[in-house]
Amino acid sequence: MKHNYLNNLPLDEAKKVYFGHLEKVGFKAKTETVRVTDACGKIIKNAAYAHICSPHYNASAMDGVAVKASDTFEASERTPVTLTPDKYTVVDTGDPIPDGCDAVIMVEDLIDKENDCYEIIASVYPWQNVRQVGEDICMGDMIAPSGTVLTPSLCGALLAGGITEIEVIKTPVVGIIPTGDEIVEPTDSPEKGDIIEFNSTVFKGMLKNLNSSVKVYPITPDKKDLIKAAVEKALSECDIVLVSAGSSAGRDDYTSEIIASLGTVLVHGIAIKPGKPAVLGEALGKPVIGLPGYPVSAIVIMDEIVSQAIDQYYGKAIVSKPTVKAVLAKKTVSSLKYSEYVRVTLGRINGKLIASPLARGAGVITSFTKADGVLIVPQNCEGIETGEDVEIRLLRPINEIENTLVVTGSHDPLIDEVADFLAKRKAPFRVCSTHVGSMGAIYAVRDGLAHMGGIHLLDTETGVYNKSYVEKYIPDGSAVAVKGVGRVQGLMVKKGNPLGIKEFSDIQNVRYVNRQKGAGTRILCDYLIEKNGMNADKINGYRNEEFTHTAVAALIAAGNADAGLGISSAAKMYDLDFIPICNETYEFLIDKNYLNDPAVKQFLDVLYSEEFKARLSEMGGYV
Amino acid sequence: MKHNYLNNLPLDEAKKVYFGHLEKVGFKAKTETVRVTDACGKIIKNAAYAHICSPHYNASAMDGVAVKASDTFEASERTPVTLTPDKYTVVDTGDPIPDGCDAVIMVEDLIDKENDCYEIIASVYPWQNVRQVGEDICMGDMIAPSGTVLTPSLCGALLAGGITEIEVIKTPVVGIIPTGDEIVEPTDSPEKGDIIEFNSTVFKGMLKNLNSSVKVYPITPDKKDLIKAAVEKALSECDIVLVSAGSSAGRDDYTSEIIASLGTVLVHGIAIKPGKPAVLGEALGKPVIGLPGYPVSAIVIMDEIVSQAIDQYYGKAIVSKPTVKAVLAKKTVSSLKYSEYVRVTLGRINGKLIASPLARGAGVITSFTKADGVLIVPQNCEGIETGEDVEIRLLRPINEIENTLVVTGSHDPLIDEVADFLAKRKAPFRVCSTHVGSMGAIYAVRDGLAHMGGIHLLDTETGVYNKSYVEKYIPDGSAVAVKGVGRVQGLMVKKGNPLGIKEFSDIQNVRYVNRQKGAGTRILCDYLIEKNGMNADKINGYRNEEFTHTAVAALIAAGNADAGLGISSAAKMYDLDFIPICNETYEFLIDKNYLNDPAVKQFLDVLYSEEFKARLSEMGGYV
Repeated sequence: MKHNYLNNLPLDEAKKVYFGHLEKVGFKAKTETVRVTDACGKIIKNAAYAHICSPHYNASAMDGVAVKASDTFEASERTPVTLTPDKYTVVDTGDPIPDGCDAVIMVEDLIDKENDCYEIIASVYPWQNVRQVGEDICMGDMIAPSGTVLTPSLCGALLAGGITEIEVIKTPVVGIIPTGDEIVEPTDSPEKGDIIEFNSTVFKGMLKNLNSSVKVYPITPDKKDLIKAAVEKALSECDIVLVSAGSSAGRDDYTSEIIASLGTVLVHGIAIKPGKPAVLGEALGKPVIGLPGYPVSAIVIMDEIVSQAIDQYYGKAIVSKPTVKAVLAKKTVSSLKYSEYVRVTLGRINGKLIASPLARGAGVITSFTKADGVLIVPQNCEGIETGEDVEIRLLRPINEIENTLVVTGSHDPLIDEVADFLAKRKAPFRVCSTHVGSMGAIYAVRDGLAHMGGIHLLDTETGVYNKSYVEKYIPDGSAVAVKGVGRVQGLMVKKGNPLGIKEFSDIQNVRYVNRQKGAGTRILCDYLIEKNGMNADKINGYRNEEFTHTAVAALIAAGNADAGLGISSAAKMYDLDFIPICNETYEFLIDKNYLNDPAVKQFLDVLYSEEFKARLSEMGGYV
Repeated sequence: MKHNYLNNLPLDEAKKVYFGHLEKVGFKAKTETVRVTDACGKIIKNAAYAHICSPHYNASAMDGVAVKASDTFEASERTPVTLTPDKYTVVDTGDPIPDGCDAVIMVEDLIDKENDCYEIIASVYPWQNVRQVGEDICMGDMIAPSGTVLTPSLCGALLAGGITEIEVIKTPVVGIIPTGDEIVEPTDSPEKGDIIEFNSTVFKGMLKNLNSSVKVYPITPDKKDLIKAAVEKALSECDIVLVSAGSSAGRDDYTSEIIASLGTVLVHGIAIKPGKPAVLGEALGKPVIGLPGYPVSAIVIMDEIVSQAIDQYYGKAIVSKPTVKAVLAKKTVSSLKYSEYVRVTLGRINGKLIASPLARGAGVITSFTKADGVLIVPQNCEGIETGEDVEIRLLRPINEIENTLVVTGSHDPLIDEVADFLAKRKAPFRVCSTHVGSMGAIYAVRDGLAHMGGIHLLDTETGVYNKSYVEKYIPDGSAVAVKGVGRVQGLMVKKGNPLGIKEFSDIQNVRYVNRQKGAGTRILCDYLIEKNGMNADKINGYRNEEFTHTAVAALIAAGNADAGLGISSAAKMYDLDFIPICNETYEFLIDKNYLNDPAVKQFLDVLYSEEFKARLSEMGGYV
């Protein structure tokens, strides 16, 4: 097997090397001349000076009559002046002031008289009610300096100043070449081993937000000559070329070699995680960048490197991305080998902005979908403790984040359903839910890391759910459990129950899939193990832990496991057989300070509504 | 003359009437199904649930070999295990795990042996280095609730979840019909009386920012039947129709009548300034809105009414626009008849965010071009005092505003030129300059309303510029005048000097155009009047005041006046003859706290640079 060499350059150094090189080879914007009527949002190359004045003639500012001001000087209530038709010209707003006139009397001040005469009882002074030449813009005035982004009103001002065409930065064209033998176009029925090519769609959206236009080339198989030909074609058509996947050092990772053959590879491997196996190269004076195949890694490289290449093209000053201060909800360990990009959700609870780390896998696109921000753990740092102040790079506008109901706890699909009902009702907030199990809810709500969370914790001594746990862990009453739903727990097994599983003790003989520690369902599992006198160590798969009911169901459906505990609605979703074991009380634990919060109240209002009950009965397994 | 009736409804009431009616007639979004690969930025109609799991098969997370984990359990440094070719399958990242295997050993952990065997010295546990089915997304999971805006990563998650097409809100089509006999397409050489049609370009830009697509119809003359036909055509092609101009009650203002004939006029006239003469109507269940002709009035209606109509179409909750608290720099008087929209610039000076009102004319598009925000003076308020705390609706991102060098004082085109040089140097701040004259600079810098400002104040007793003024008005030394430029002041007269003006005293016999009180040039004018024993009251045009050198030059070039005092560069711009009168010392007064501010230092660095001197000599009149 081939082991290609990968660098591990710190990001700052990689940027310095790469962007320094791009500058040296003269990578920068092209310009084009466009009509000002189509130029909104574009960046002008040079300062724009007005060609003409606006108004470019003396214009009436009112509907009325134009006069010579000196003809009106005598007018007063006692000595009205009569204007004969030879002394005035009727003008509408915007009409030119006729030669010889220098003022306008507004229509409301004219008294109709015979023979088309008007009487006036007040004088006007020279240039009264007249928009004189240049009132808005004077010929020669600078309307906007170099590099200005044209706003709608600036486009208006340019046109008013007689500028009809203008030189602007040409929108850069970024070419994306998806590569890989296993990559297929988006489909709802991929074959085993097919990888759905969605990265180029993510890049396309990001590039659109970076004011670029995008060419997505056809998927190219892992053949060196084909990829090289695709890169050469893209180089002839685009300003920046991205090669998606193949940037690592595996058997079929050709990107680095190909770029080297066409130009120069400046960096191969950056000390960031995710994002390490990026190739930063240049050919024909243009950036050619090899992106990692994992979507999250690629997004980080897009954000750090590609976006800066586009800024360099546009000649923008490097502006640091917007950040906020927050409190870290959970200890985050990191390697000294990398600077690590941890995706987090954000929410304000009891005055503090709380950052909760999300899943860290490079393949987990949903960690970016759900993320409100990114915590960058520096390379020289082994980790950050719970409760420490951290700086979070924002991925979402702060006002959306401020209006977030944070629901952290036991997984149930009903939480997403409530969020959907709230969205349909145009609730002025969003729901951010994360699944950390029932005990996770207790800690999160108690410690001010969530507004509320679902719990279903069986007290095995009394058979009563939740109450004793809340009393034990939150003795000060700072959080309260309120009514949720009843639901059925049971064993999920493959359709038709091929292994003939009848009761919980039968899992001893099959491949089990478990839930994580602290989950209500895990506590139930452990209780059933004890009650049945079983030995956890003997259960095949006891240590195979998942975080949601659907994840457990998915693994049973896929054949990775034969049985797992979960709720009926998950079994139904995956067309699994379901062996009911018990009914349980799923409640919501709520921070007392938020019991009357409008968002919490709306959440419960949906939950208790008749239309939501109808939805629950559709989903099945709620009692 | 016709006086049509205009209401004067308060804005809130007008909105209630109008949007209530639109809701009643069922005005809302259409939807369409689009490919997810093209859906970034769109809003989904319904909640999106994953069709398949992602990964949809058990995939290798590494380059390496797939094995049965139990085959490795014995491996340790002391007891290495040899994997014969029948015990492993070579896999790359993303490859499916073959049946019978349940773990991957990474390539780095394999020791090459003879006969294609590998040795390992550590075990792997079941599912290690495998991305199990559903690791990222489980089939049936909600990927996003109703009404979500699709971000790039959400589009990726949808595709990963096997969703290739999705129902989204169709982008609304807004039709713009420019009307008016005097209106012409953008040109750099309009005839007298022609009004350049730039409003539709402003609207188009604003609508693009509001996620609408735009159809601009040809200019329609002021003929009722033609405008009616244009509205009918637009109604058949668009979701919202805007009629530009003709919304007032003048001779040719037909919009209200036409909408009434096709549907219903709900509001004609809103108690806001600018923006009063708007027509809010409905036909065929669609909004038909008559916009005022003055650009600033129209922008206010776009911002308040049209944007809300689009939000109503999209079904968005009404979100209040972002605001900041600021300190008002200048007393602002307002009428009890209207709620008034005062455009302001913003800048942070000595810790305070200062809001300085801009020109208030409804025709002054540059007041929006320059504006950083809008101060809304409520209808029941007669005005707001200098120094009061005010709430400003932001028109620009706050970080741009925070990075603003506020230059307030005497007008000289060189300030714009410095700003342009700074932009070319990619200075990380912008320059916001306003022209309030030299005395205005003294007050603004002294009172903490500006970082710096240009001054050229002649002490008529000593003949020395600036020094005595600064000492008198800023005795505590909290501001310092630093070197600027020398420049030539003189009389500007029409090319060829047709009236034979030779010296200042000749202005007694011609039409003069003056500068505003407090301007250095005005002080020079008054000094020359006194020195020449002239009588200001006898000077025709002494009260005709302009705020800039170019405005004075423009009026002389247009023939509104015969002579005016100003600087040589302005005369050159307008091809006027120039009669030099004196050389003056134009300096910059700087708040002492900002003498070492990087922005101020860069400003001066440009000003004193050789390349800038070259630019000044091009402009002419600097010594």
